[in-house]
Amino acid sequence: MGACADETSKMTGTYDPTTFRALSFHDVTEHFRQGSDTPREYLERCLDAISTREPTIRAYVSRNEDGARTAADASSERWRAGQPLSAIDGMPVSIKDLLETRDMPTQMGCEAYTGNFPRRDNAAVWALREAGAVVLGKTVTAELGGAHPGPTTNPFDVTRTPGGSSSGSAAAVAAQMVPAAIGTQVGGSIIRPSGYCGNVALKPTQGGINRGERQATSMSTHGVHAGNIEDMWRVAAEIVARVGGDRGCAGLQGPLTAPPAQRPQRLLVLETEGWSRLDDSSRKTFEQLLEALGRLGIELVARDDHPLLEALEQSVADASNVAGAITAWENQWATRNLVDLHPEGVSERAKRALTLADSMSFADYRALLVQREQAQSAHRALAGAANGAISLSCPGPAPLWSGDVPGEPLTARPTGDAVFNYPTSLLFAPCVSMPLMAVDGMPVGVQLIGQQHDDARMAAHARWLLEHVQPMIARSD
Amino acid sequence: MGACADETSKMTGTYDPTTFRALSFHDVTEHFRQGSDTPREYLERCLDAISTREPTIRAYVSRNEDGARTAADASSERWRAGQPLSAIDGMPVSIKDLLETRDMPTQMGCEAYTGNFPRRDNAAVWALREAGAVVLGKTVTAELGGAHPGPTTNPFDVTRTPGGSSSGSAAAVAAQMVPAAIGTQVGGSIIRPSGYCGNVALKPTQGGINRGERQATSMSTHGVHAGNIEDMWRVAAEIVARVGGDRGCAGLQGPLTAPPAQRPQRLLVLETEGWSRLDDSSRKTFEQLLEALGRLGIELVARDDHPLLEALEQSVADASNVAGAITAWENQWATRNLVDLHPEGVSERAKRALTLADSMSFADYRALLVQREQAQSAHRALAGAANGAISLSCPGPAPLWSGDVPGEPLTARPTGDAVFNYPTSLLFAPCVSMPLMAVDGMPVGVQLIGQQHDDARMAAHARWLLEHVQPMIARSD
Repeated sequence: MGACADETSKMTGTYDPTTFRALSFHDVTEHFRQGSDTPREYLERCLDAISTREPTIRAYVSRNEDGARTAADASSERWRAGQPLSAIDGMPVSIKDLLETRDMPTQMGCEAYTGNFPRRDNAAVWALREAGAVVLGKTVTAELGGAHPGPTTNPFDVTRTPGGSSSGSAAAVAAQMVPAAIGTQVGGSIIRPSGYCGNVALKPTQGGINRGERQATSMSTHGVHAGNIEDMWRVAAEIVARVGGDRGCAGLQGPLTAPPAQRPQRLLVLETEGWSRLDDSSRKTFEQLLEALGRLGIELVARDDHPLLEALEQSVADASNVAGAITAWENQWATRNLVDLHPEGVSERAKRALTLADSMSFADYRALLVQREQAQSAHRALAGAANGAISLSCPGPAPLWSGDVPGEPLTARPTGDAVFNYPTSLLFAPCVSMPLMAVDGMPVGVQLIGQQHDDARMAAHARWLLEHVQPMIARSD
Repeated sequence: MGACADETSKMTGTYDPTTFRALSFHDVTEHFRQGSDTPREYLERCLDAISTREPTIRAYVSRNEDGARTAADASSERWRAGQPLSAIDGMPVSIKDLLETRDMPTQMGCEAYTGNFPRRDNAAVWALREAGAVVLGKTVTAELGGAHPGPTTNPFDVTRTPGGSSSGSAAAVAAQMVPAAIGTQVGGSIIRPSGYCGNVALKPTQGGINRGERQATSMSTHGVHAGNIEDMWRVAAEIVARVGGDRGCAGLQGPLTAPPAQRPQRLLVLETEGWSRLDDSSRKTFEQLLEALGRLGIELVARDDHPLLEALEQSVADASNVAGAITAWENQWATRNLVDLHPEGVSERAKRALTLADSMSFADYRALLVQREQAQSAHRALAGAANGAISLSCPGPAPLWSGDVPGEPLTARPTGDAVFNYPTSLLFAPCVSMPLMAVDGMPVGVQLIGQQHDDARMAAHARWLLEHVQPMIARSD
């Protein structure tokens, strides 16, 4: 059964941004220091939430609860001794199941990888452990980071997708199971689920966080889902302090704690190809949000106001196809090897990407890279025009999803549409998703988009917006 | 036992560049077409050479001779039918054992990877098969592409190293076992062994050939060892035609067959930190070579002639340390995982790189990246000054090597010194190694170094030099 806009608008979720509070970690460390709370107790609260909600949410593929308790006890000891390893010492985090972890299998949402257990830590996971974080579990990913969904449901309405491919990471944070989780994005796999689940999230500048051996494609990044900007930033910063950015890249830059809130003076309003796919209610709500920003004195620049913004939008007008084809080309050898070894272990959806790659030549691929570079040029040209750009994280609330119907054609985009994310992935731009809207009782994220390496500044602006803007709530009649 | 310059100069190898003829492939395909020779017969000649020489050379870790015969028969059929898949259809090639091959294990010269057999093809291997090439075997690599040597000996003197880490690939070509072999380079792992073994070789512009899933470090490349420029170029070009360059990179550019010979008008003479480590005989012979170039009307630009060349040499004056530290940082998580899993399965040499990485911070690493970028700037500034640069591929003939002595400290650089290669690796520059010198009966390669993406032009100049310059022969008294 596919999602249908009319049906969707009649469904109502349980999300209320005025009352919802995600878990927070940074504000409890003072209690750890004073002894009125401990990382072990924090972890137990997370495990309680998991045991209550996991049966319906299904955010996890595996957990190492014993290992987590041991790590939390060691952290409790360090805080007691006044010697935490970092500001995130003791923080329970979950890891998208595309990243290798030495103590849990890495099955990538793909039948062909059932039981895959290389007993290695991805560089980012290694860094988290070095920082004292408690690696609690592996969260569900859509198959191989693509579109074929796992079993996770949206914490605010079990009949809807949490988005993907970082489905479990987004849902685990939204279900108050953990304060932060690692996701990855190639097209829209961090920012879209974050938008559907009411998370704060960072998709850093391309190369910002060391992907270790998992250098999946030229647009893939590690990123962070969290309940607030401070936790989000600390997780990213503590990883990068230990393992840096990708090989050859400058890496995420900024302080170890989130930069202070900073009011943006001027924001570009980015209307990309997603605009036409947006439901009326979400569009109207976003317009109300923009009006509220205007009332706060933030100048908004729209396409008609600036020829360079028009040029940028033109340059990413075909972003879905460009990003899709680049990714299909780059993934083809890994996928081909997998399909050859496990013909039945890979979904039809993944095999379709192989068909796309088969239809391409290297010259086609190079032409797409040139198109990507041109889009990046158009974006750079706007560097002085505003503090950043604002757009939606996702095209409205999460669509309904209850599985493909046997005998029927595969549902298109079961984890939702990344149409608002492909442009920023192509731009290698840092994005911060903010839970600033609710439509029909479901979160709809809003993203701030920076120039490359402006991650810290985007976090500062996002912080300001989250502190000063009342989330916009729309309910259908 | 380590190599000692005085001893080395008294040893004499069997290399005579006036009589030595490596295998050639491009000039036999016409015979395949006419039916007077077949890929299967060509392969059998290779297998004969292997059965004669492999017991002392030890270039291979594994071979799939049955598979190669099947592939050669299929190729013979295609040539007979006038429908070869490419110009290298039927060419026997060997693959450095760092690259995955679906039909042979990938053990990376590392005990910890004994029996590792993922049954996948690296993108370049896949491309070779698609082009009809006959993947004959896996060649010995120094452990993990580093400095810890495998058993391969130099085909011109079994008491010497073939160089590394592409030890087996260089030796297999020099021993006339195959017309071409795939190597990889991070520091000097293609060009140095090629220089020690009398090969022609291409280390392409960084990103020039798709490394597939093996994106080892920010300076690693796939490259080609061959007996002549035409075969070398065709192998590289046919791979790139099918799988392109690295993700996000433009990839090797140029025709499918080697560009026509082109006389360089002007060449920079690049004297890097290797100069001081060069033996007198090799230095004198290189000077004689430069004089010969002068007589052919090629203008030579030395450090004293050009302040920008002086600036470039300064910018890479510490190249060994810079390249070594960048590589140690980038490899550390993979190595650490391996050592944790197999503490006894990794050499002391590899563990030392981990010690270096442990002493570095991300800030240290970033500073090295800046230094690398500055060197690349200094190189770009010379783009208009000459057609390329000329230097040695290796600091004199291959050193003696008969293994570490138990109880003594580990021999430094058992596969020779990459001091002439670190600078060009840092520059991401294309290099073509040419067998233009012999010292003490051993090959000493000479390299042409281009600006990034000048691979085809370097091949054209190298071709001209190989056609017009008599190799210089020095013998000690």
